[in-house]
Amino acid sequence: MAVKEKKLPASDQTYKIIGSRPIRPDGVDKVTGKAIYAADVRVANCLYGAMVRSPHAHARIISIDTSKAEAINGVKSVVTAADLPNVEDGLLWSSWKVLARNKVLYDGHAIAAVAATSLAIAQEAADQIQIEYEVLPPVLDVLDAMADDPIIVLEDLRTTEMGAKLEGRTNVASHLQHSRGDINAGFAAADEVIEREFRTSTVHQGYIEPHSTVVLYNGDDHLTIWCSTQSAFGVRNGVAGLLDIPVSSVTVIPTEIGGGFGGKLDPYLEPVAALLSKKAGSRPVQMTMSRTEVLRGTGPTSGTYIRVKMGATKDGNLTAAEVYMAYEAGAFPGSPVGAGAVTILAPYLLDNLLINGYDVIVNKPKAAAYRAPGATVAAYAAESVVDELAEKLGVDPLDFRQQNATQEGDRRADGPVFARIGNKETLTAAAEHPHYTAPLEGRNRGRGVANGYWQNWGGKSSVSASINEDGSVNLVEGSTDIGGSRASIAMQLAETMDIPYESVRPQVVDTDSVGYNDSTGGSRVTFATGWAAYEVGLKLIDELTRRAATLLEKSPDDVIYEDGFFSSNGNRVSFNELAGRLDETGSPVVASASVHPQGFGGAFGTHIVDVEVDTETGKVEILRYTAVQDVGKAIHPSYVEGQMHGGAAQGVGWALNEEYVYDDDGRLLNASFLDYRTPTALDLPMLDTVLVEVANPGHPYGVRGVGEVPIVPPVAAIANAIYDAIGIRMRSLPMSPGKILKAIWDKEGN
Amino acid sequence: MAVKEKKLPASDQTYKIIGSRPIRPDGVDKVTGKAIYAADVRVANCLYGAMVRSPHAHARIISIDTSKAEAINGVKSVVTAADLPNVEDGLLWSSWKVLARNKVLYDGHAIAAVAATSLAIAQEAADQIQIEYEVLPPVLDVLDAMADDPIIVLEDLRTTEMGAKLEGRTNVASHLQHSRGDINAGFAAADEVIEREFRTSTVHQGYIEPHSTVVLYNGDDHLTIWCSTQSAFGVRNGVAGLLDIPVSSVTVIPTEIGGGFGGKLDPYLEPVAALLSKKAGSRPVQMTMSRTEVLRGTGPTSGTYIRVKMGATKDGNLTAAEVYMAYEAGAFPGSPVGAGAVTILAPYLLDNLLINGYDVIVNKPKAAAYRAPGATVAAYAAESVVDELAEKLGVDPLDFRQQNATQEGDRRADGPVFARIGNKETLTAAAEHPHYTAPLEGRNRGRGVANGYWQNWGGKSSVSASINEDGSVNLVEGSTDIGGSRASIAMQLAETMDIPYESVRPQVVDTDSVGYNDSTGGSRVTFATGWAAYEVGLKLIDELTRRAATLLEKSPDDVIYEDGFFSSNGNRVSFNELAGRLDETGSPVVASASVHPQGFGGAFGTHIVDVEVDTETGKVEILRYTAVQDVGKAIHPSYVEGQMHGGAAQGVGWALNEEYVYDDDGRLLNASFLDYRTPTALDLPMLDTVLVEVANPGHPYGVRGVGEVPIVPPVAAIANAIYDAIGIRMRSLPMSPGKILKAIWDKEGN
Repeated sequence: MAVKEKKLPASDQTYKIIGSRPIRPDGVDKVTGKAIYAADVRVANCLYGAMVRSPHAHARIISIDTSKAEAINGVKSVVTAADLPNVEDGLLWSSWKVLARNKVLYDGHAIAAVAATSLAIAQEAADQIQIEYEVLPPVLDVLDAMADDPIIVLEDLRTTEMGAKLEGRTNVASHLQHSRGDINAGFAAADEVIEREFRTSTVHQGYIEPHSTVVLYNGDDHLTIWCSTQSAFGVRNGVAGLLDIPVSSVTVIPTEIGGGFGGKLDPYLEPVAALLSKKAGSRPVQMTMSRTEVLRGTGPTSGTYIRVKMGATKDGNLTAAEVYMAYEAGAFPGSPVGAGAVTILAPYLLDNLLINGYDVIVNKPKAAAYRAPGATVAAYAAESVVDELAEKLGVDPLDFRQQNATQEGDRRADGPVFARIGNKETLTAAAEHPHYTAPLEGRNRGRGVANGYWQNWGGKSSVSASINEDGSVNLVEGSTDIGGSRASIAMQLAETMDIPYESVRPQVVDTDSVGYNDSTGGSRVTFATGWAAYEVGLKLIDELTRRAATLLEKSPDDVIYEDGFFSSNGNRVSFNELAGRLDETGSPVVASASVHPQGFGGAFGTHIVDVEVDTETGKVEILRYTAVQDVGKAIHPSYVEGQMHGGAAQGVGWALNEEYVYDDDGRLLNASFLDYRTPTALDLPMLDTVLVEVANPGHPYGVRGVGEVPIVPPVAAIANAIYDAIGIRMRSLPMSPGKILKAIWDKEGN
Repeated sequence: MAVKEKKLPASDQTYKIIGSRPIRPDGVDKVTGKAIYAADVRVANCLYGAMVRSPHAHARIISIDTSKAEAINGVKSVVTAADLPNVEDGLLWSSWKVLARNKVLYDGHAIAAVAATSLAIAQEAADQIQIEYEVLPPVLDVLDAMADDPIIVLEDLRTTEMGAKLEGRTNVASHLQHSRGDINAGFAAADEVIEREFRTSTVHQGYIEPHSTVVLYNGDDHLTIWCSTQSAFGVRNGVAGLLDIPVSSVTVIPTEIGGGFGGKLDPYLEPVAALLSKKAGSRPVQMTMSRTEVLRGTGPTSGTYIRVKMGATKDGNLTAAEVYMAYEAGAFPGSPVGAGAVTILAPYLLDNLLINGYDVIVNKPKAAAYRAPGATVAAYAAESVVDELAEKLGVDPLDFRQQNATQEGDRRADGPVFARIGNKETLTAAAEHPHYTAPLEGRNRGRGVANGYWQNWGGKSSVSASINEDGSVNLVEGSTDIGGSRASIAMQLAETMDIPYESVRPQVVDTDSVGYNDSTGGSRVTFATGWAAYEVGLKLIDELTRRAATLLEKSPDDVIYEDGFFSSNGNRVSFNELAGRLDETGSPVVASASVHPQGFGGAFGTHIVDVEVDTETGKVEILRYTAVQDVGKAIHPSYVEGQMHGGAAQGVGWALNEEYVYDDDGRLLNASFLDYRTPTALDLPMLDTVLVEVANPGHPYGVRGVGEVPIVPPVAAIANAIYDAIGIRMRSLPMSPGKILKAIWDKEGN
């Protein structure tokens, strides 16, 4: 059998399809409004659900009286936490998050829900649910929560300290530590040591499409869920767990998705709509959040306190780093402090380091993942200190980073050894970019740079595929397509099979119709599902080679597939002809494949930004922005660039404006897009991108995850640029006009 | 590798799942009204289509003026045959059938269609399309069409005579012949020779659900078709052919189907709705036929003329048979005369035979398949003659059939040699059934028997499957489930994998999401798709054995799978535990399989019926009915019995009441279920069934097709029973009250 072998490619390998920019298969549907999002799903006999949410940040629930609501004409079911099964410890917090039991833990915490024949009736009935509270004082800040004798959010919480459970009531869910070398000796060897504290606010992913679902709890106890999710299988397993039913009793049909960024991994509405549907006699229930519900009731990312101490010798070598990072988990354990700790020092070779990380409960919504979770604020802290050190040492900031940059064979802070990475290549490309050396004239203007690292999750992916008689290939996937992955996966199959991109027809199907797929998250889809497509492509070509051998009357071992032809001793049959003649050779040609890549990849980005600070108003304008990134191998460069644009844009918002504003009682004051200020096109210049391709040796086509890296450096780069512009190090996010103005006044002694 | 081998089973092999009667997976949806049929499909922005149909059976189209229709507010597109591409010869007739070009060829022939924002507007606009006709005389009867100098329906038609094209204008599309031995010597050796003529009327399948479709011709030239069909891939390929686009440009989403019986294989509405959608700027178009449209505009089965001559010796041996069969194809070639010729003599061992078959064009709708196409009327003719011969020879009719019955190793009329078949076993079971020997008292009561044969198509089937962490298996199929095949296929997978039936979750998906599958027809689905499920089950168990070996730390060759456990030297892991621990062993477990069984199977049925004839009215009442059938191996006996009930019931209608009634101008006079008389529950007694299990050696579980055999004997059995009751051989269908009364009067000399 002579299937044309695809070697693990060097970065200079040339491809026919990979690296081109074809049109996405879902493009027409999306630009013409035909694509079906969750709120577009219409199911006969559907009810509409409305949620009752807590007006208090912290309160005991004394009683819930649903009788008035139930009496309203058109109301078909009302549910509370009492309708959720008692689940085991691991799921208790998830269940509590879905519907509050005993205590509400944050403003907007879901408590009850109503399904009725119209949304208006459901909302009216929701208003008629009487809830008696004993209001408790909230704890809203990570340092307050860690203080002595704090307000306790979860009575039964005990700190997990590097695996062991500690005694005593606490808000600290866990404490992690990474250490290496001799931290004291490291600092002793330094000529310059800088230690700084940083504060960051809770921010939201800000996906355009609110959470939405339709759920049918059928009479045979089978659940069908249409929803907007990054993880159809995650919703399937999550809902099954919360309702204590087998995963095979749940079918999730993922609709198109209007953004997620990590915020659409966990189910919020789905288990509640399921209960409503069941109680309503198996009528389907539609639930869609308002923007206010999204901001109050889903998972933003953590507010944090981070302290970074770094030391370096006069000749520019980093000698030690110590990091203390405390991340707000929200009301239940699970901040991204772990990933923050992995990434914060990853760009730098450090013989001596100590990282302490704390996951801390406060009366805010449980944190969800947000694009490179935990890394943006970590890089903000570390890269600010690195920048300050470089300045102290009188070294160019990129030179300083280059001198200390990790490379293949170096150890990451948390232990594993880097395979081939593009850290140095990316820094070099940034230093050589015209932006970096372009003159920047004018008052209160400054330029900043920052580096950032994000790992690449592998996860599990499954696909199946079949050959059509016209030479096209149907490809069945389970990965929700957020950033163009139908195209990037189809391209890898086309490359593998040496057929035109247009010949591959990718479909994203429900959880019953494809093998298991992990979420569209962790920058894994083009990497892992693409790899599964590569594997299924090899299987198809293998089988087609056998079929060609039948037609050519040769042994399969004597048939070569190359350039679209199966050939043997001068006789040949084209791919398309063979596809049309498969009936002569046996049964339809079908294949399935799955992958579960182990190990870790990872990639680096270096961003350059020019800003101008209006010292009258404190407003920062982004003048120019260049994102340089090691993308491994860009399968579809336009979509890679799109990821870089998006990450940078979100970073700009995080840096300059976005924050959850709470009053002293813990009520969210800015739960709308009028008051929660994400950047618009007017806030951004054209964003330049530079794709550095250092092929990932751990992938057949050298792919690295590209979606998360670009949100890591922006905040730090902007902070460094603001310092360059006005000489003030902003160590608290957001660097909003008010804060900047105050910092200017403080500096001027006002 | 020690996957537990499934041997080709003998009929006495015992099974855990096969032969049981579990609940069908789609049961709850169907009894609660949740199942989505084509007319239930709701797509945003949908238009509604109405068809213009010919009021003439035969007419030249002089002109079509659509301007008035197009001017109506709300009309978005109007199409005629001019909008269909010019297709090559093979597809010309199909295209002409979909929208008439130049000539209309039958009452109800589709000519034009309108899409509008409401059905009312579409129908109003359809009425405003001005069509000028030159009306031509029609030819409505097969013998008239074959007479000298007939009215010619298709000017360019030439007879295909056993492969060769003949000269001259004709209505005879083709002539086939099977012959064996010396027919003259055979009749010379006979002691009794009987020759009889039979006439049968055009009848319709009478499926409950009318044809319905929603079609979106998208802006990227990709078509999505929701429809009620027996063959999603057939519609895909048919529409692609008619529109001259690649098959991969068409996605067919098969909805649930309310019956088909062969009548839902060809596309009728789908290509027209596609053209309407395209012309309307890619708005989806919904089209649903009325019952009248179904009867006028789709494919019933042929009216026929059949002449059978058979001879036998005094000691009961058949010596020769000669058959002349002329089947009306309707307006385009393609009656089931071929299958009629294959089946008509199949139950009998005949050394001398001659069959001439003719496919004849008349001005009626093009015949479609109808359950054992062509065989029912063939059996009616042959089994009537066999019955008369048996009577003449003074032999019991079942003994006579048994004495001459074909068995393994005998040749079928058309040549192939039977593998193991259950013809004799079925006849024996019938003869031994209490019904056959029960006394039948009372005036004008009679008992009849008849035998019938139908082959079993293999065709292509593809499936894919994956293992869930709870030990369940998702099974992806492409075979529309008409008679319970989700269950019967899942049962074969469960049996193969030695897991509970409830652990298998079958899904019928669209044409993009599974490999190629031939139609749900030809009694092939439980046979071939079940076989594909068997193959995918073996693959899954093979892979799971490898995974178990990893957990057990053994070589896969040392692991045995039996009774739900993977074991090696006393260590073992259950199927369910392994399913939950697959992550420890690698990637998700997925597999695909396809089959394309060759050769021919086939099965026999013997029906016993008691009737009472009301000699005052001519009405025939069915008193008792027993259907005996070789079912190979009944995977789900209830569904096999259901097929036998259904076939017998349809046969009763065909025998006694159903017919297309035309006026002299060729207008269908009874195009409604008020006037076209199908049997109701009031017309039928409880139908008894006897499942004879003679395993099919050509299938892993011995499956034979069971859905078509039971419609073959009923008409003949009833005719023989009527003779037994009143001494009159009815040789024209339907044996309706009027005809019976006339026959009684004729016999009585009135």
